[in-house]
Order: sequence, then structure tokens, then C-alpha cells
Amino acid sequence: MSKISVAVLGATGPIGQRFVQMLEGHPYFEVEGLYASERSDGKRFGDIVKIRDCEFSDETMGIRIKTMDIDRISKNAELVFSGIPSELAGPTESELAGKGMAVFTNAGSHRMDRHVPILIPEINPDHASSIEQQDTYGNGGYIVTNANCSSTGIAMPLFALDRKFGLDEVFVSTYQALSGAGYPGVPSLDAVGNVIPFIDKEEEKMESELTKILGGYSKDGFKPADFKVMANCARVPVVDGHLESLVIKFESSPSLEDISCALSEFRGEAQTLKLPSAPDAPIIVRTEKNRPQPIYDVLAGSPERAKGMASTVGRIRESNGFCKMFVLSHNTLRGGAGGSVLNAELFKAKGLLR
Amino acid sequence: MSKISVAVLGATGPIGQRFVQMLEGHPYFEVEGLYASERSDGKRFGDIVKIRDCEFSDETMGIRIKTMDIDRISKNAELVFSGIPSELAGPTESELAGKGMAVFTNAGSHRMDRHVPILIPEINPDHASSIEQQDTYGNGGYIVTNANCSSTGIAMPLFALDRKFGLDEVFVSTYQALSGAGYPGVPSLDAVGNVIPFIDKEEEKMESELTKILGGYSKDGFKPADFKVMANCARVPVVDGHLESLVIKFESSPSLEDISCALSEFRGEAQTLKLPSAPDAPIIVRTEKNRPQPIYDVLAGSPERAKGMASTVGRIRESNGFCKMFVLSHNTLRGGAGGSVLNAELFKAKGLLR
Amino acid sequence: MSKISVAVLGATGPIGQRFVQMLEGHPYFEVEGLYASERSDGKRFGDIVKIRDCEFSDETMGIRIKTMDIDRISKNAELVFSGIPSELAGPTESELAGKGMAVFTNAGSHRMDRHVPILIPEINPDHASSIEQQDTYGNGGYIVTNANCSSTGIAMPLFALDRKFGLDEVFVSTYQALSGAGYPGVPSLDAVGNVIPFIDKEEEKMESELTKILGGYSKDGFKPADFKVMANCARVPVVDGHLESLVIKFESSPSLEDISCALSEFRGEAQTLKLPSAPDAPIIVRTEKNRPQPIYDVLAGSPERAKGMASTVGRIRESNGFCKMFVLSHNTLRGGAGGSVLNAELFKAKGLLR
Amino acid sequence: MSKISVAVLGATGPIGQRFVQMLEGHPYFEVEGLYASERSDGKRFGDIVKIRDCEFSDETMGIRIKTMDIDRISKNAELVFSGIPSELAGPTESELAGKGMAVFTNAGSHRMDRHVPILIPEINPDHASSIEQQDTYGNGGYIVTNANCSSTGIAMPLFALDRKFGLDEVFVSTYQALSGAGYPGVPSLDAVGNVIPFIDKEEEKMESELTKILGGYSKDGFKPADFKVMANCARVPVVDGHLESLVIKFESSPSLEDISCALSEFRGEAQTLKLPSAPDAPIIVRTEKNRPQPIYDVLAGSPERAKGMASTVGRIRESNGFCKMFVLSHNTLRGGAGGSVLNAELFKAKGLLR
Repeated sequence: MSKISVAVLGATGPIGQRFVQMLEGHPYFEVEGLYASERSDGKRFGDIVKIRDCEFSDETMGIRIKTMDIDRISKNAELVFSGIPSELAGPTESELAGKGMAVFTNAGSHRMDRHVPILIPEINPDHASSIEQQDTYGNGGYIVTNANCSSTGIAMPLFALDRKFGLDEVFVSTYQALSGAGYPGVPSLDAVGNVIPFIDKEEEKMESELTKILGGYSKDGFKPADFKVMANCARVPVVDGHLESLVIKFESSPSLEDISCALSEFRGEAQTLKLPSAPDAPIIVRTEKNRPQPIYDVLAGSPERAKGMASTVGRIRESNGFCKMFVLSHNTLRGGAGGSVLNAELFKAKGLLR
Repeated sequence: MSKISVAVLGATGPIGQRFVQMLEGHPYFEVEGLYASERSDGKRFGDIVKIRDCEFSDETMGIRIKTMDIDRISKNAELVFSGIPSELAGPTESELAGKGMAVFTNAGSHRMDRHVPILIPEINPDHASSIEQQDTYGNGGYIVTNANCSSTGIAMPLFALDRKFGLDEVFVSTYQALSGAGYPGVPSLDAVGNVIPFIDKEEEKMESELTKILGGYSKDGFKPADFKVMANCARVPVVDGHLESLVIKFESSPSLEDISCALSEFRGEAQTLKLPSAPDAPIIVRTEKNRPQPIYDVLAGSPERAKGMASTVGRIRESNGFCKMFVLSHNTLRGGAGGSVLNAELFKAKGLLR
Repeated sequence: MSKISVAVLGATGPIGQRFVQMLEGHPYFEVEGLYASERSDGKRFGDIVKIRDCEFSDETMGIRIKTMDIDRISKNAELVFSGIPSELAGPTESELAGKGMAVFTNAGSHRMDRHVPILIPEINPDHASSIEQQDTYGNGGYIVTNANCSSTGIAMPLFALDRKFGLDEVFVSTYQALSGAGYPGVPSLDAVGNVIPFIDKEEEKMESELTKILGGYSKDGFKPADFKVMANCARVPVVDGHLESLVIKFESSPSLEDISCALSEFRGEAQTLKLPSAPDAPIIVRTEKNRPQPIYDVLAGSPERAKGMASTVGRIRESNGFCKMFVLSHNTLRGGAGGSVLNAELFKAKGLLR
Repeated sequence: MSKISVAVLGATGPIGQRFVQMLEGHPYFEVEGLYASERSDGKRFGDIVKIRDCEFSDETMGIRIKTMDIDRISKNAELVFSGIPSELAGPTESELAGKGMAVFTNAGSHRMDRHVPILIPEINPDHASSIEQQDTYGNGGYIVTNANCSSTGIAMPLFALDRKFGLDEVFVSTYQALSGAGYPGVPSLDAVGNVIPFIDKEEEKMESELTKILGGYSKDGFKPADFKVMANCARVPVVDGHLESLVIKFESSPSLEDISCALSEFRGEAQTLKLPSAPDAPIIVRTEKNRPQPIYDVLAGSPERAKGMASTVGRIRESNGFCKMFVLSHNTLRGGAGGSVLNAELFKAKGLLR
């Protein structure tokens, strides 16, 4: 069976590079071209790549970056992975969908659109049906988004707990990695030895995306779940890995053991279908008193090829009737490129790709 | 008027060094001796001091560290500032109080003792009367503690809001500086590029101390305030300055403007009495979208001599009926040595020192 | 006596901000205006300032940034301090000198010009006479440069040693701070936990500037000193303070004690004239086994107002007939704005300003 | 063919953990036991391991640490890899050799002993014959050391250049990683944003080890090579990877191209014998203007299993007749555990193990 040819947009940024990493030797997809802004036109991928924990094949290192040209892309590729910044992503992705393309994107521009899903295969595979209503684009094109990097990491644990115990209120504070700000991103003079308690639109995204992801979908649109999210977001001098503190008020009164079991036993459709990039267990529960930590745990707990695709939960505690925990996830893998690759794998496995 | 001679215990640690900084040229107090463990006996203060933002006089740099000897201390000094680790602090401070000494300590050992106050002059100066019940020590000796470094920073904003709007629930996540772990403290291999989501007993302290500080005192003991605190504590690679995210549920429904005013207009007895180390305004409200930040704001907003003694609040927002904000304070000044120096100044000003 | 009105160019960058810091309350100079690119036009200085170890007066914080307009500047100010990037500095500074202005600049553009001095008052105050030959600018205008930040730090120790023992070969490796790259400068993803062994044109500057600074001047131009410099330059994740390792081959064979004395006893014309920003001793020798260190020593060893204006030398050792040492200096104070302010003070003190 | 059973000493430290990493699935060696101080007795390896770029098998994670007991070790293991601190290593390793054991050690204690080789298979495989003269230990036991982490990285490039062009003088400045200081090692308060220009005995080691390694051996002992080394050593806030700046004076006058070729074409006996941990090319030459950098290059350029075993050279330049370059190597792999594992592989391949 021949592989599906895919284009990677925004291939020079941190998310774009992670797309290339996820797609090296992928069983379903084959990179047709890497696209970025004119500034990088003609450069070798190997000249711009900057990932600390990954090596690329010589072939990949030698690929030349091309300028984004929507006609060319839609003629040559069957599917698009988009890692372009949100400012650009809105119109570009609409145009590509308008040309009949399947667009799997990390950008936030279309996430809250009426029939665009924020898809996480372990949580809401049924939301995929929303693409049928994206007729504004015609020609069978559509857009599927992965969640914001901070929402993704806690979405799986929250879903695993919601369906068993019912979520009422979720208080989250983030300790977000520098790679989430793109490249060049945060100036080093602001980052070294500092915490920046502001990430543009991040709190708003978390407060609206999570209830959409865990909510329902019908032809009338998405119906958000009815728990509340209160988010505080901050940037810390960590390279990769968003750590998040959670305080949860449940509708019921589960024991800490119930909670721990619900998390570690959780499996979703990504696991049932054995999607290539799916981790064996989407949620890893650690019992040490001081984990998870970004530098030691951000890649852990998954098979080799799917490293960085699970959420790691630790320090599950109780206080005044609330449940507390810390959650770590990889912001440019599961919370970025990996999320969209997994979504495309779901579409392939379920025969939703044209 | 002659100055009161004071001994500094644990003078070689980060808190001890801050005591020395606060006491240089102090109008009330004069350092009689610096004391530490045997390992440092005879060393010059200048050989061990490590503070990035402060210079000491040649005279101070030349002071020789002495081994802690309780008889000697109680004979030579009138008052003790203690920056020794909690493991040691319990019995040592009891013994000193037993010798009739006034002990102002940063250690946590006695904070929850029945008649020992956790004193913050802007909040609960009336708690000072609890020392009259510390008769177990005899001879007029007593112990006064300052709050844990994470509790201190938010105690003033919480108090200013509680008395106006009534606190119901407080959710706090901390971004705590490395200097809070003492020296040598956190190994650099664990700190660089990392977040450690665990600080021993810190969450428990925050959840119990804050309600004691904001509660009442009668001869029967302390009566905690009745709001709830849910704390998540983490260490980040910052040198000085604890940043904390807050989500607050009030009993009433103040506007963001009401909240901001209540904070910036707040003054306490430390200001009324014009205590030497008291900041002009104990709470500074910043309106920029991305402040306060440890590297830029940890020392700001106070007169020269009392730098690092205020709490800085920023990003006051509303979400789902909850109020959100970030608070920054200096963990080894206001949240450490400075807290105890201010307490001793209150005692002096009110004639409570023998 | 009325003060001289000065304009600061490039006032929003790290060097520009240090100019403002050095000029607050200055006895000779008064800031007429702060100038920067159009992007900052109308912003308050307080909104852009980012210096970790310094506080500004409310008045300074409120100054509005103006767009650079050469006619306006030359009409309103008597003297210009320039902290603009080298790309822009060349023509802009020539134009200002052409309008008859005295330009004291940190930019590298004109440093190797035939009659433009790289002035360090402790070393080559006689080079100031070169401005008389800058007749290309007419109207009495001229340009005086301070040395590159890496050259400055070691220039004073090298000069103190050259005149006593004769330099033959100088091997220098730098550990340069992030603030030397300007703002936004180095992206944090490249800086955290890393060393970057390349700084554009820095090695070439060090290898040519030092021999010009320590050389002679006659009306025919500058005659470089005849020792050789071999430089390796690297950027490290430090905020302020360039540390440099030196290996020196002398023409004679001084003892380590001779070397140490020559350094610590060194004084120059800046000290004789008691220039306002001059440190009491331009070179501080430390004898501890592990100093100087950027975080502890970068500001030390000078009177309050002239902090960061000395070079600190440590670890003076011998190996195979070569002398080894480490030198630390503040790259945006002595090695930046402070260098030019001191130069202007020299001109004022010697009556060279029109 | 059955594998050789090996003991790892000091298994809880950074070097010990790297030994375990190098030995996982090793074709020649099988871990018989992990040994450390009493403090770690009975702990699982998985509970103490802290390596950011490596995952261990469940089996390895479950191994229990044992207290060092020389009789037990010498009875159960055929060969010892030692990662214990130098303070302890001296007598312990002598005792083990005295029991007839082959000891391959990273410790510095015996490096300058009369008949103990500092072995690097690419450079001086003939030095292995020195073990025949270690008769003081009797029973066929002997000690083989790998070089100090800073010496190792530059030893291969220096050797490749010495045999072609003749070394005269070598000036080296180091930018050394935190992992080189062991665990807990450097306190984070001293590391964040700082450079420490002192590493105990490091400069002395570099100045004496390199000439021993590149020198000759006869039954009378080692004869050092006759070039001179002048070293300045400093610690920077990098996790893994020692970067070093070099300035070299050759006896001849090679072109930069000659130098580059001599480095990249260099192969040694480790490559001829295809030792399992040997990199395909021991020296990698990079031509980008700003490489090598620790975070991007410390593991690169080698086959999967032998990651971190090559030296990467970049920025080869000329200045005043001297050659300048930067060299990067992995301080706990090639410069630590990997060095000794490669030495033991050489012994196995050449039939030198009993």
C-alpha cells in the first residue's frame, strides 16, 4: 500500500520540526515537502533544525525548504500538517481546505469555529464527524485542530476522571516551557532565572477549549461540558514540557486510590486502534513524592517511536475536599505536532481520509 | 539611646545573611555576634557571604563567626534573631527562651505552638499578646515567629481582601525560588531547566499558617479564620522571589476595581508606627499585562533601606466568578529575615521588649 | 555652573538604559532627551526599562522616548551618548559629528577610523588629541569611542602589566554575558544550558582594538603596540559580566607577586582627576581560589555611584613560564555606557569640550 | 560465548549511571552487580537514576544497589568499572587489583602512577603493555585509567594533529558542564547565571595528563611528549558536554585545510578493531560558523549505541600564526564511563583480559 503524501507547513519552527520528527519512517505518511516563509526558501532542513533530544536521517537533513505556495501544495500533497503561527494560519488553512485538502493543524485560529473539532483520539473521536458540516470549504476539504499545548496535557486526565466521577471545578496553574513560545520566542534576558506570569490568550484558550473537547457534538454544533475551568498561565525557564498544577472539585467523592486507578487504567480509541503514534497507556501515574519533573519525565513512559505522547500524573493528594495533582506533558509533541499526527492517524484508520 | 544588642543565629545561611543585611546600620539593633555551626567557627562573614544584590561594610565583612553556645549568647545578647534550620531550631530556641531571651525566628518549628504567634505587623499585631502565655519558658523569655516564605507573600493581600470582601476559598500555586531551599540546597543538576513539584511540608504549612495568621487570639489560644486554602508548591530555577498564582472565591462579589483599590490602599500598624523596615505601602499593584516578574520586581517598590519588604500583585482578573491574580514577594527578605526584623521592631515600638 | 545637556541615542537597548543609569544625578551632564527608533516613539522610559540591579527615579521613568532626528538632536543637545547598534551607528554618528557635535559612542563602526580614538582614561588619555585631526566632520564635531566590551575588561590589566613587564603574547578566551548581545538578543532556547562559541566579529575586534588602545598616537595616526592577541569568544548564560581567561607571555620574568602588585597599585588619569564615574582603583585583585564570579563580583569593589566600573582579577598563576589569570568586568557599564560616560568626563575635566 | 561479568562501583553517581547505560545489552560484558556507599544499600537503580537523555530497561531499573565489599566483588565479578570519587578510589582500587582483578577506572587517583596507563584506544593502545609491570598488585590484577574528562575531549584532536604537524604549545580554556562535578555537585545558587573559574586540580591534571597520553611507554615508565599545555578551567551552567577553546602553536605550518583533513580523516585502533562502543569517526569536524554547541552537538555524530563517544571540532581559524578551534565532547560518556568501557573493550579484543 502506498503512503499518503503530506506537506508540512511552518517546517522551520519548533512545531514544524516536531512534525518532521514524528513523520520520519511513518507507516502511513510520507513527506512530500517542507514549507515555510520566504526567508527560509532553499535552506536545508539540517541547517535550521534545533531539537535537543532527536537525530534525523541524512535524507531528512538534506530536504530543501520551499516557500508556501498554496496551489503547489494542493497539487502535490494529499494532506497538510500545519505548524504555522496563528496570525497566518487562519486564512492559509481556510484556503487550503477550500482547495479540497485535509488540514491537520496545531494553530489556534480555527479551534473555536462552529464545525471544526479540537480532536484528541483518546477522548472525542466522535467529534471527527463534524468535518461533514464544514461545507463552506467545498471539495471535501476540512480542518481538524489539535488542542492548545496546555489544554492537551490535562485533557486526558480530566476526561478519565470526568466520566467516572464528574468534574465540577478545575483550577489549573501552568509552568510552561520556552519551546511553547516558538523560535526565537522569549529573549534569554527575560528567561534566565525568571518566571513570566503571562502568555497571550493562553488562559482564555484553556478555559474554553477544555469544555469543548470534553463536550458533545451534534449537527447543530458543539455543546460544551458544564464544568468550570479557572486558569493561571506562566512561562518558566524549561526547554520542553509543560507542568501543570491541578485542584479539582468532583461531583462525587472518589478516594485517592479510585482516582489513581481511573487514571492509570484509562485507554481510548487511539489505543484500541493501535494508532502508530499512540502511547500504550495515555496516562502514566507516578508515585514518587517529587515527580513528574520536566527534565526527567517529559519523554518517558512510552514506546520508542511514540515518546512524549503520554501525560504523566504525580502527587495525587487531597485537601479540604479537593483533589490536587501535578500533570506533565510534552508541549511540542503530544501538545503540538504529535497531537495532529495522531489525529491524522485516526482519520486514516477509520477511513475518513478521502 | 543605646541600641539593643542582638545575636544572629545561623548567620552563614541565606536567611542568616539577610538578617545581617537588614541589621547593618539599624536604628534599634546592634549585632553583638554572628553564630553558626562549628564548621564555620572563626571564619570571616565576608568569606561566606553570598548575596547577589547587596554590599556589606568592611566592618561587617570582618566579623568572625562564632559557634553557637547558648550560655554565651544569653549572657551577651538581649535579643536573638534565628535563621537556623528547623531541625535544630526547635530545642535551641526553646532553650534560649528558657534563659529569658526574646527569640525572633524564621524557623517553622514553633509556628503552630499553642501560644506562639506567627506575627505580621500589618495583619495581626494583637497576636503579640500571646507571648504573655508562654510561661513554660519562664524568666520572661518568649518566641515570636515569622510566617513561612510562601505564606508571607500572600498573607498581606489575602488579609486586605478578607476584611473587605470575606475570603471563602483560596487556591494557590507557587513558583518558589532556589534561595528558599537554603545553601547548598537544590543541586544544580536538578535545577537547571527544570521545575520540581515538591517542597517538603510546604503545602501543609501554607494550608495551616494562613488561617492562623488571619485568625483571632485569646488566652485560650489561636482561633483560625474559616476560609480554606488549597496549595500546590513547586520550585523553579529563580534565585530570589516567590511568585504565586491565586484563585480566590469571595463571600461577596467585589469588582476588580474594588479589589485593586483594597490592595493598593492597604496600610497596617507597621506603616502607622513607621517601623524602620516597613515599606511605605505593603502591597504594590502593577497594571502591566505581564508583571510582576521575579528578576525585575522582587526588590522594587520600597524605600532604599526596606527593599524587598512589599508584596507585588499583578494581573488581577475574573473568571467564572473567581478572582485571579499573581503575587510576588522576596522570600528571604519579607518572607524570611525581614519578617522577623519587622516583628522585633514592632515589639520595640510598642514597648514589649523588656 | 550649569550642566551640559546631553542626548542619549538608542535609549531603549541595554546600553542605552545603562547610559540613563549612569547619567541620573550626574554632576556634569543633564539628559536633554532619550532617542530611539520609531517603534518606541512616545513610550515612557519606565515602560521599556529592564535592568535587574538598579532603580530609577520617577522623573526618569516618566521621560518619553523620541524618534531620532538629527537636526533636532543637534539643535537641543550639546553632546551625544550613542548606544545604537553598529549597523546604524556609522552614518548617524558621522552626520552628528558633521553637525558639530561631540559624539561619545559605544558602537564599533568608527573604532578603527584613522583619527578616532578608542579612549580609556586610565590608559591612553593622550589619544584624545586625535580629535583635532577629525576635520572631515568640520564645525568642531568629533567622535570618541569606547572599546568593545570584551576588550575593555582586559585592557586595563594588560596596560598595567605592559608598562612594567612588556607584553609579548596574550591568549584570551571569553565567557560573555547575554546582555552583550542586546535585546531581544539571544533566543532563550539557544541560551538555557548552552554555550555558543561564536560572537560575530568579536575576536577580530579584540585582536585589533587592544593593540590600538595600548599603542601610540601622532598626527600621522595610531601606531599599534607590538604584542599579539589570540582570542576565542563564546557566549554563556550569564546576565551581566564578561569573564575572560588570560594566558600571557611577558618580555621579562616578573614574579606572581610583582604581577599582583602591578595590578592592584595601578591608577590612571581617571583617578588622578577624580572623574565622577571613575572607580577608586580601576583594578581589583582577589585572592580567593574561586573568584571572580559574575553573580557575586560584577558590581563590586567601587564606590556606590561608580559600581561596575572596575576590572576584577583573580587566580593569578604561573604555568610553563606563562602567567594565567581570570578577569571579570561589567560589559554594559565599564564595557559599554560607563566607558563613554567616563570619556566624556575626561573631556570635560580637561576642557576639551567646546 | 559467555559474557564477562562486571561490577560497577559508585553506581549511584553520574559516572556510575553512565557505566550502567553503556553496559545495557553490551556484547562483551554483563553487569554482575552495582555497588555504592552504604547510604544507597538496597535501593533500586531506578530510584536513583538521573540521566536526561536515556531510558533504561525495566530489568536494569529494578537492580538493587549493594554496599561495596571488596571480597564479595572480587569473588563474583571478573572485571570492575569504577566510578567512585577520587578520595575513595585510591586505596579501594589498589585493593581490588591486589585481589587479582582488572580495574578500569574513571578516578584520577592512579593516573600518574608509574606503570598505570591513561589509555585512549585511538591514541596509545601500546600503553596497555604497562600493566605487565604492575606487579606490586600481584595475582595478575591491574589498573587502567581513562583520562580526566577535560583532557579526553581534546586528546584525540591533539594527537591527530601532533603526529602530522608536531605540537609545540597548547593553550586551552574550558567551559565545563555541571555533571562533571558529580551529584549533588555544584549548588544551584552558585550555578544559575554564573561561571565559576575554578575546578579543583583540573588545570594541573590537564597539564600533566595530556603529555603522558601522547607520550611513549617503555619498561622504565612513561616518557611525556614534549609540548607544553597551559590550561584555564571554568564551570558553566551546562548539563552535559565540555566545550574547550584551543590555541595551538605547531612545529610546522599546516594550512587550515590540512588541519581540518587531519582531524576528520583520523582513525585509531578502536576503529580498526571495530570496538562495540567506538564511534565510526572519533573526530567530527563541523563547518558552521557557530558550532559545536553543547545542547545540540553533545550526542551527535555517532551510531546509536555509541552516542557521545566522539569529539566534535568547529571554528578552525588562524590568528597571528596560531591555530584556533573549539572542541566539544561528552564529559560523562567519552570523558567518563565510556572511556573506561572502550578501554575494557580494547583489552577484550586484544586478548589482554585473563
